[in-house]
Amino acid sequence: MTLADGVRQGQQRAIARAISLVENDLPGREELIDRLYPSTGKAVVLGLTGPPGAGKSTLLDRLLSEERKAGRKAAVIAVDPSSPFTGGALLGDRLRMQSHALDPGVYIRSMASRGHLGGIAGATADAVKIFDAAGYDRVIVETLGVGQTEIEIAQLSDLVLLVLVPGLGDEIQALKAGIMEIGDIYVINKSDKDESARLRAEVDYVLSLANPTPERPVPPVVMVSALFDRGIDDLIDSIAGRLQRYAETGEIDRRRRLRLRRELRQQLQSKINDHIERKVEIDRQMDQWVERLISHQETPYALINRQIEWIFKEMDRS
Amino acid sequence: MTLADGVRQGQQRAIARAISLVENDLPGREELIDRLYPSTGKAVVLGLTGPPGAGKSTLLDRLLSEERKAGRKAAVIAVDPSSPFTGGALLGDRLRMQSHALDPGVYIRSMASRGHLGGIAGATADAVKIFDAAGYDRVIVETLGVGQTEIEIAQLSDLVLLVLVPGLGDEIQALKAGIMEIGDIYVINKSDKDESARLRAEVDYVLSLANPTPERPVPPVVMVSALFDRGIDDLIDSIAGRLQRYAETGEIDRRRRLRLRRELRQQLQSKINDHIERKVEIDRQMDQWVERLISHQETPYALINRQIEWIFKEMDRS
Repeated sequence: MTLADGVRQGQQRAIARAISLVENDLPGREELIDRLYPSTGKAVVLGLTGPPGAGKSTLLDRLLSEERKAGRKAAVIAVDPSSPFTGGALLGDRLRMQSHALDPGVYIRSMASRGHLGGIAGATADAVKIFDAAGYDRVIVETLGVGQTEIEIAQLSDLVLLVLVPGLGDEIQALKAGIMEIGDIYVINKSDKDESARLRAEVDYVLSLANPTPERPVPPVVMVSALFDRGIDDLIDSIAGRLQRYAETGEIDRRRRLRLRRELRQQLQSKINDHIERKVEIDRQMDQWVERLISHQETPYALINRQIEWIFKEMDRS
Repeated sequence: MTLADGVRQGQQRAIARAISLVENDLPGREELIDRLYPSTGKAVVLGLTGPPGAGKSTLLDRLLSEERKAGRKAAVIAVDPSSPFTGGALLGDRLRMQSHALDPGVYIRSMASRGHLGGIAGATADAVKIFDAAGYDRVIVETLGVGQTEIEIAQLSDLVLLVLVPGLGDEIQALKAGIMEIGDIYVINKSDKDESARLRAEVDYVLSLANPTPERPVPPVVMVSALFDRGIDDLIDSIAGRLQRYAETGEIDRRRRLRLRRELRQQLQSKINDHIERKVEIDRQMDQWVERLISHQETPYALINRQIEWIFKEMDRS
């Protein structure tokens, strides 16, 4: 039986091997994904993002319980883009989600990108396809941070839950400005805290400045306490309601097209760069270029533009 | 007088215009940087990074005061990679740093990247060159988050201060694993809090697992309370000590070469992609490719590889 067959039958070991193939950008990655691709397109992809300390893991634990109650299989991809050094081994590995460790209907996987084909966003996109083909009804992509990478990964989703929490200090306010527009549902966690009402008012205010459309109306704001298991029903209803509306208005389709577009572009760029770098042996010449800059014999853009010209001439010649 | 002359003379308005040129990737960017380049290479670039809520702004305020006492001019680039939507306008704009607002020896600038030549890392690298050419002795690059982008930006620095703080929850622990290796000095802020001793022990433990070299020995851990202005002297001493050692061991030179290498590579890639996308009009064809994938008429990597072949054939023909 091929690896693709194993994945399609939902075998846990086959899935683990498939994800590693993608994560490490090993030979066989492209063939595997192409084989699985015809079986994809059924899973709903939820993004879960927000600043560190917002309690996303506890919330995820509650969401998984609800998915299981509804009879759905759910996979979690915990993206760890901040570990180019440690190779993506997450410390502690989501202790709070251990309640689902023995449930075969839940698959939790931390993931980094050691390869470079499309980077971490490309690897995550392929991992989503693996779980989709393996029959998981929901794939939840959780990101740890709130930087550019996290936004790219959130854009892989059909629906994004943005989790905020009161009392994380001033910088969170600044961060919120940047990430505000990626949320489809705003979840204010730790609703038991006094300051959560003020945070809610702030979020409502920021959202009132947005430009809602019939396809994408003003996002709901849901107050929850993941720790005390409060408000989770409201959140589940919000998710279902939004998904249905997005399906009806064609928003889901629009996003999936956008997602494929982004994937294609990233992987084309990555392959074009690899091809050119190998062909003109950029690595071999880089040292020399750097020395010319360090010694101020040349200026950076003059050098870059000269090399670009030379690269395309080299390519035409071959 | 040209814009480059104004920058070299340290004129604030010229600097502001130059940064905007780079930030928005406007025409004239490359010429400006090339003109300034011969005047660069003197500034020391400090990276300041750490999770949101770690009190980096307050610490920065203290550091700036010390730089000024020592008679050095200092520029701060507050990088905001999380705002592809809002265009980089930071809410609140670092209220705590207002004590330096009227000091001409301090320049504080928030920065996002609306252009795409090398992205935010490329824009920040060019902004560093502008401040360097304008005579700032220290350029402090502050990042808000802890994702991949932040790591790339930290890698622009001669020395990285990683600020941690007790009590930001479990996820911080996981984050630390990823960012641990980028720090040259570990700053534990809010040392007045009881839990800071435990955090220090954790940091010491993680650092004991590292592989120190003569060029880059185990990083010092400094306890400070930026708010109560405690431990700042120790930090200043640590910075001076590390910079001197890195200068002596050639570590600074090694980093500058690495930095130039990274810049060259990023900008080459960016220009190659632009060139190819324009030449073969990828945008025009993307819709059709997406439809073939959505309808499952083709699989993603088969499509990508076919297009890559076609692109290089097209390029050879022209």
